[in-house]
Amino acid sequence: MSVDRTHVEEAARRIAPFVHRTPVLRSRSLDAWMGADVFVKAEHLQRVGAFKHRGATNAVQSLTDAEASRGVAAHSSGNHGAALALAASTRGVTAFVVMPEGASAAKRAAVERYGARITTCDNTLDARRSVLTEVLERTGAVEVHPFDDVRVIAGAGTAALELIGDVPDLDAVVTPVGGGGLCSGTCIAIAPVRVIGGSPRDRATSSADGLRTGCSGRTRAILDAHGVEELVVDEPAIIAAMRAVWERTKQVIEPSAAVAFAAAKAARLDGARVGIICSGGNVDLDELPW
Amino acid sequence: MSVDRTHVEEAARRIAPFVHRTPVLRSRSLDAWMGADVFVKAEHLQRVGAFKHRGATNAVQSLTDAEASRGVAAHSSGNHGAALALAASTRGVTAFVVMPEGASAAKRAAVERYGARITTCDNTLDARRSVLTEVLERTGAVEVHPFDDVRVIAGAGTAALELIGDVPDLDAVVTPVGGGGLCSGTCIAIAPVRVIGGSPRDRATSSADGLRTGCSGRTRAILDAHGVEELVVDEPAIIAAMRAVWERTKQVIEPSAAVAFAAAKAARLDGARVGIICSGGNVDLDELPW
Repeated sequence: MSVDRTHVEEAARRIAPFVHRTPVLRSRSLDAWMGADVFVKAEHLQRVGAFKHRGATNAVQSLTDAEASRGVAAHSSGNHGAALALAASTRGVTAFVVMPEGASAAKRAAVERYGARITTCDNTLDARRSVLTEVLERTGAVEVHPFDDVRVIAGAGTAALELIGDVPDLDAVVTPVGGGGLCSGTCIAIAPVRVIGGSPRDRATSSADGLRTGCSGRTRAILDAHGVEELVVDEPAIIAAMRAVWERTKQVIEPSAAVAFAAAKAARLDGARVGIICSGGNVDLDELPW
Repeated sequence: MSVDRTHVEEAARRIAPFVHRTPVLRSRSLDAWMGADVFVKAEHLQRVGAFKHRGATNAVQSLTDAEASRGVAAHSSGNHGAALALAASTRGVTAFVVMPEGASAAKRAAVERYGARITTCDNTLDARRSVLTEVLERTGAVEVHPFDDVRVIAGAGTAALELIGDVPDLDAVVTPVGGGGLCSGTCIAIAPVRVIGGSPRDRATSSADGLRTGCSGRTRAILDAHGVEELVVDEPAIIAAMRAVWERTKQVIEPSAAVAFAAAKAARLDGARVGIICSGGNVDLDELPW
């Protein structure tokens, strides 16, 4: 099943009662740093602190009552687990989340706070998949994949749809790319506007822990079909971008979101009007010195 | 000369072209932490990253042309110096800022960026005062004290005036108290609304480096006349409040601003509608682990 703009528009209507319509932030100091007019779609201010709440909510709210009664399930070490847990609890549905050992205490606490049932597994992709399969078989729950799912892609696209509604004359929109769900949804929502996708050079070791996976066949095909320009950014550029945003806009963004700012800067969009999907703000503050 | 609400209203009109009308932020997660409905007047999003821009702008814009031509001067290790430098450059006037050795590189860079002339002195209050006196005598500049100045107090009060204009039915408004300029201006702007002032227990060693001074005779008299409730908060409570705000609202606030959140929590305003003047967001990111 393919996804088109109609799906994104339907998703927007479906999730509107449950998600924040996040603001578009402006900062002349950030503009000076970027050398462009930057419009920040503030998904770090979304519920759960990330755009992931949009896709998870669209998926959960799309279920039939019979499906919903069996619950939803995913494996996640991060924002998708929390988003699915909240989306499920909003519908009064059970979420089963498989989390690897070593996931941050803050993220585990968020998933617990929203009432999900957590199963802990070894910290390998194989273990996560096989434990999730067991959970799905045991419970009959519906799997909600973090990005390889048309409902999740359509939900993710609603952020860009809102952005372009608020700021119609953008020259380009930039997103981070991990599994490609956000970037896919963005392309579909706002084509033919130019879309740029930023990725960390080394996914395995980057501080951008939300971007550790690569695209699926589905999201890769969508990016290619829309001619997304992909830019790879180095770790120092990610950290520099994160610091620039913290310092100049006073917004706490996570490294995965900073990848989009770093890519926008690397693209040298001098004087252009640039939208950035600021994907999330969940930083582990235990790492801070205070 | 005393200050009354008319001065604050005049200041609001005078500075309007030069300052941001900052938003009032809401967060249900912060409300849950506080146990009250919190309305955050976001002065960390003010120009220069602090409410100080209001008072400095009011002072500089109040000068006669003859006064302005001589320039303005202050000693400051922090936000007031940057605020005065920007306010002066906005009017095309010279700012002379006396900064102690050991002031943070970020703060010194901000003062320089706005074109002020910096004189460095020893890091004692005596040295700061005597070097400032020399500068005033040499240049004929007009001193703009960071808080013991009716123009600065009136300017600081404009933040609360805007807050109460946006949210008229607050039960209390909380500010940090260092020299008392912000708290004084707030009382004058919104009396008879209840005002609570928060201070760190040990000003000399607190992370709240914007609150290292105590009140002057003038600001003390204003606080007393308005019956401000003063609450002292411990360092762990300040840090906990700062983390709660960063984590739950994704806003970078500085420790001095966190003092107001800590005081509001300590006041146990259960279920009340509480305004907080979030005084600034200038944190030295060199201390961060990235």
